[in-house]
Formats: sequence, structure tokens, C-alpha cells
Amino acid sequence: MTTAGMTKAGKLIGVGVGPGDPELMTLKAARALQEADVIAFFAKAGNASHSRSIVARHLRPGVVELPLIYPLTTELPKCSADYCDALENFYARAASDIAIHLQAGRAVAVICEGDPLFYGSYMHLHARLSSRFATEVIAGVTGMSGCWSAAGMPIAQGDDVFTVLPATLPEAELVRRLADANAAVVMKVGRHLPKLRRALERSGALMRAIYVERGTTSEEKMIPLVAKTDDDAPYFAVVLVPGWQARPGGGL
Amino acid sequence: MTTAGMTKAGKLIGVGVGPGDPELMTLKAARALQEADVIAFFAKAGNASHSRSIVARHLRPGVVELPLIYPLTTELPKCSADYCDALENFYARAASDIAIHLQAGRAVAVICEGDPLFYGSYMHLHARLSSRFATEVIAGVTGMSGCWSAAGMPIAQGDDVFTVLPATLPEAELVRRLADANAAVVMKVGRHLPKLRRALERSGALMRAIYVERGTTSEEKMIPLVAKTDDDAPYFAVVLVPGWQARPGGGL
Repeated sequence: MTTAGMTKAGKLIGVGVGPGDPELMTLKAARALQEADVIAFFAKAGNASHSRSIVARHLRPGVVELPLIYPLTTELPKCSADYCDALENFYARAASDIAIHLQAGRAVAVICEGDPLFYGSYMHLHARLSSRFATEVIAGVTGMSGCWSAAGMPIAQGDDVFTVLPATLPEAELVRRLADANAAVVMKVGRHLPKLRRALERSGALMRAIYVERGTTSEEKMIPLVAKTDDDAPYFAVVLVPGWQARPGGGL
Repeated sequence: MTTAGMTKAGKLIGVGVGPGDPELMTLKAARALQEADVIAFFAKAGNASHSRSIVARHLRPGVVELPLIYPLTTELPKCSADYCDALENFYARAASDIAIHLQAGRAVAVICEGDPLFYGSYMHLHARLSSRFATEVIAGVTGMSGCWSAAGMPIAQGDDVFTVLPATLPEAELVRRLADANAAVVMKVGRHLPKLRRALERSGALMRAIYVERGTTSEEKMIPLVAKTDDDAPYFAVVLVPGWQARPGGGL
């Protein structure tokens, strides 16, 4: 908190806290959390924040916490105008809630699972605030790095082309892109798993695909996709398609 | 070191130490380095090891250090059989040097810049040793995460397709792949920069490309590629091509 009369400038800090294992946070992230005046984090209404739990041991007692509660949009079809409006309003309000602290000269650390600028919600705040306030982004270990490390699986090497694909793509598009890359990670698997299985089979990558759920956490599940007998998958599950080992001599 | 008579099992640990800033190492990596019996790292003959310098403050005084010195292959054309043989022999010898310590029951930490299993030399050791010895891989912040975070540049969001490309690809292939991805990182820029510029221009991505050299280190250089007036680039320079902000509404 600022002392009366001080003119300390506020600072927005996007803090990557890694894939889930609290020890996979960087030294820099731990320091930023300890030094921040305000800790902001995304959460769903009624749910404990996962990102908040990753950093719990690093928070100063009594630090100001600012939960940013996602709007309840499960009843709205994604891509609908109402859904987009609700999200847009949510990010605008979250940014203005943070701006109040920044204007008061406080350092606000936004907790980001994985890496802040790689498929993270933080960038919606960054885009709205970084032109008006001092900003720092602390890189983090991505969820996908956590997954392939937990699997002990070399993902890409040398002149490999590596691609990250959302499982939301149409099946034909998944097939084309999987066949066109040496190595891939498919994200947002969830209810798209049956389609993804077909796409992996058609692209010739099914036999080397690894399914990973909640990688690096105590609830981690990891299995070759061909050995997974059901189609249950949470939204954040990923499928890893290694490049290097799949090529002649790669596994030597 | 093992005590005489103990039967402690050896352990190979691939330790990701991040993109260059020593504070971007994880808590887990710092602990592994402090606990290891032997610290192994890749280095070029006659050069100080960059990865060794990142971790210097975390090494126990007197810990056994095992430098793995790359063979002098600059005189051999890359892709030649002699070059491949020299590298193959080097990795085989490095693995057997490490195996001696593992057989003696020691924990050997191999320092890996960035993330061990993402385009890293460590995986050549991992592939040779992980079936014979207990192995752990500690994920690290990748060089590319360090670069886009230092640039404060959101790289990918939502349903973006994100691709990592080596600049060694033929120009037409770079054009095709750059045009086919929402966001990209081009690695191993070095002497390929003129070709890469042309490919970025032809694919329509030149105006949003950012050149980054030695990201997150004290020697960091970062500039929009269109503003870079020379073609000097080290091998490890990268070019970032952001997805999200390039789209309508993305920058909001």
C-alpha cells in the first residue's frame, strides 16, 4: 500500500506461475508475488481459484486480494453475441478494477497459469492497461512444457516444425495440420476428443499421441491415446504428438 | 557423493534453467541444482558455458562439475556424414561419461537452457539413458516465452494456430507456413535473415514481426524487424510474429 503523500507509480505485473506444480514457478515470480501490493487472479464464481492455490505459499499475510470472477456464461452458446458481450464487459470491468489500484500507485500482480502471453486471459488486461501504466511480464513455464516434461517425452528437435492446435478446429483442418507438422500439441481437447482421435488416425499420428490431463499436478493423468478406452476429457486436457522420436534415428 | 557401501540409485535430472535471466529459473530447478551430486553442462571448447553462468549462484561449493564439450565441427559442412558422425560420437561419449556417475549412485543434473525437451541437446542424453536409469525432467521457461514476455507482446490467444519454424527452411516453405499460421516464432535466424525477411514480406507478416536477440539477458536487443537496418543476426536470434493483436478487435 502507498503511504499518504507518496507519488510511487503503479505497476501492472503479469506473473506466469507455471503449469500447476507450485515448484515450477520461477524465482522471479515468487519475488514479484511477495513484493506486490495487490494480488489479482481469475476465478469462476463459486469455485476455488486454481491459480490462487498454486501461489498460496508465496503471498504475504494480509496482502490485498482482487478476485476477477468470470461471468456465468455456460448457458450462453459460445460465439454468440451475448457470450462475447459478457466476456468483453467482464474484461473491461476487471481492467478498470485493477486501474484503480494502479492509479493509487500500487503494484498489482496478476496471477497467470502457464505463461501470461501464451493463450492466457491476462493478455486481455495487458491490452487494456499496458499503454497507460508501467507493465512487466514475467514469463512462466507453459502447461504444455509441464506435460511433455512429466511424460519424459522429447517433443521437438533440430529443424522440426512444431505446431499448437486447438481441438476446436474442424476435423479436416486438424488432419491437414497434423500431417503438415513434425510435432504438435493439441489443446482444449474436452468434448472434441472423438473428432481428434479420428483426425490423428487419418494423419498417421495416432500411435504416437499421448493424452495428458492436469499435467504436473497431484491429479495428473497420462496415457497413450490409443490405450484410453473412454472419451472423457476435461477442457484443459492436451494431446502431445512428439516429432523427434518418430523419425528414423530420432530415438537413438 | 555416495558413501561406501550405500546402494543409492543414480538419477538423471534434465534441469530447465530458463531463457537467460537467472531469476527465470524455477524453484524446482534451483532445488535440484543444490541437491545434485554432479552438475553436467554443454559447452563449446574455449568458451565459457552460457548455461553454467545462468546457474552459478545455485551451485554448492565443491560440487562435481562435468562439462560436455561439443566437438569442433565448424570446419565440417553441416549435414555431412562426418559432421553427423562427430555429433553422434560426442553424444554417445557424453552419455557414457554421465552413466559412470549414475552407476555409482549419484544424482546428475544436466543444465538445459530453456526447456529440456523443447529443441534441446539434453534429449540426446535422455534418449540414451532414460531406459537404463531413473530420470526426471524439470520443465523450464522456453527462450521464446522469455522473448515475447520481454517484448510485452501477446503471442497467441483463443483458437489461434501457433507454429515454431526453423529459419533453415526453404523460402517458399517459410512463406507457405507463415501464411498458414495465426502466430509464429522463427528460430535459428542467423545468416537466414535476408531470406526470412523476404518470406515474411511475401506472407504478409513483415509489418508485425519483432526481432529479438539474447532475450531476457543483459545483452538483449529487440526491434521491429522492419526497423532493423542490417542483416546481422546470431544463430540464436528469433523473430516473433504475433497472432492475436493482428486480428480485428484483438488489440482491444
